[in-house]
Amino acid sequence: MYEQLRAHIEKIVELTDSEFLFVSEHFVAKKFKKHQFLIQEGEQVKYHYFIISGLLKLVYTDDTGKQHIVSFAMEDWWESDFYAFYMQTTATMSLECLEDTEVLCLSLDGYKALCDGLQKMERFFLEKANFGFLGAQRRIISWLTSNAKERYEQLLKQYPALIQRVPKSQLAAYLGVSRETLSRLSP
Amino acid sequence: MYEQLRAHIEKIVELTDSEFLFVSEHFVAKKFKKHQFLIQEGEQVKYHYFIISGLLKLVYTDDTGKQHIVSFAMEDWWESDFYAFYMQTTATMSLECLEDTEVLCLSLDGYKALCDGLQKMERFFLEKANFGFLGAQRRIISWLTSNAKERYEQLLKQYPALIQRVPKSQLAAYLGVSRETLSRLSP
Repeated sequence: MYEQLRAHIEKIVELTDSEFLFVSEHFVAKKFKKHQFLIQEGEQVKYHYFIISGLLKLVYTDDTGKQHIVSFAMEDWWESDFYAFYMQTTATMSLECLEDTEVLCLSLDGYKALCDGLQKMERFFLEKANFGFLGAQRRIISWLTSNAKERYEQLLKQYPALIQRVPKSQLAAYLGVSRETLSRLSP
Repeated sequence: MYEQLRAHIEKIVELTDSEFLFVSEHFVAKKFKKHQFLIQEGEQVKYHYFIISGLLKLVYTDDTGKQHIVSFAMEDWWESDFYAFYMQTTATMSLECLEDTEVLCLSLDGYKALCDGLQKMERFFLEKANFGFLGAQRRIISWLTSNAKERYEQLLKQYPALIQRVPKSQLAAYLGVSRETLSRLSP
C-alpha cells in the first residue's frame, strides 16, 4: 500500500528512495469495516487520511438531526474533518465507511514534519490544497447555477465510478434532495 | 501598499527585509475604477490579485445569461479565476470592481518563483490554500444545511463589514435568491 502512496505523490513531485522512506515513516496503516467511523463528531481529529481502498462519506449533521453528505472519498483521495484536524479542535463532522476501507493515517505533527523536512512535500500539499479549493469552488458554482437534476448529471459525468458504488439514499444526501426526488432524476 | 502586503504575509511567516524585497519584486501595482474588469470571461488570466483597497466580485455567468456571484473580495483578500490562473486556461468567470480598487498583481511565473525561491512563501501559500479550501467547504455546508434566510444571517455574522458595502442586488446574486426574496429577509 505504500507503493500506492508513492505513485500518488509522484504524480506531483518525484522522490528518491530515501526521501520516500522519510515520507512513509510518518504514516500509520489502519483498516476499518463498513459502517465503522474514522472520525466521530465531538471527538478529537487525530489524522488526515489517504485512502488506499474503500469508500467513505464525510457527514455534517444539522440541529434537527438530518445528515448532509459534504463529500465522498475513495481510492487515492485524502479525507478528514480538515478544519478540526488543521486547527486541532473537535470534529463537527463524522467520517464513516460505506465499504471496508484501508487508509494511511497522517497526524498534524507528521504533516508539519513532512513540510518542514522536505520541500517537495510542501509542494505536494500545496498542489493538493489548491486542487481541493478548486473542487470545492466548482461545487459552489454547481449549487449556484444548477438544479438537482443537473447536479446529478454533473456528478455522473465527473465521477462515474463513484456513482456506481454509492447507495442512492447517500447520493440524495450529497445532492441535497430527497430520496424520492433522486428516483425521479435517475434512470 | 507594499507594507500592507508584508503585514499580511507576516501573519503567517516572518520575513527579513531582504526576503521581503525579493517577494515584493514579483508584484506589480495596478488601480482600477468601479465597474472596470480585472478578468473577463474568455480571456487569459494573467494574475492572482492581492487586494490593497476596494471591493470586487467574482462572477459566473450561466448559459441563460444569469449572473451568479461566486465570491466577493476586499482588503487583504486574494482573488482570481484561480482555476484559469493556475491551469493557464481562459477565464470562465469575470472579476469586476464594485468600488475603485487597488491591487498587487502576481503572475503564475511569479507565484512559482516565490515558492521555489523562498520556502517561507510556499508555507504562506499552503496556509492560504488550506484556509481557502476550508472557507469553500464551509459555504458548501451552509448550502446543504441552511435556507436563504439562515445563509443571509451567517454572512451578516461572518462578514459584517462586507454586508455594509455590497449592494443588495449583488448580495442576492451571491446567496442564490431573487432581489425580492432578499428584501423580505433583511431588516
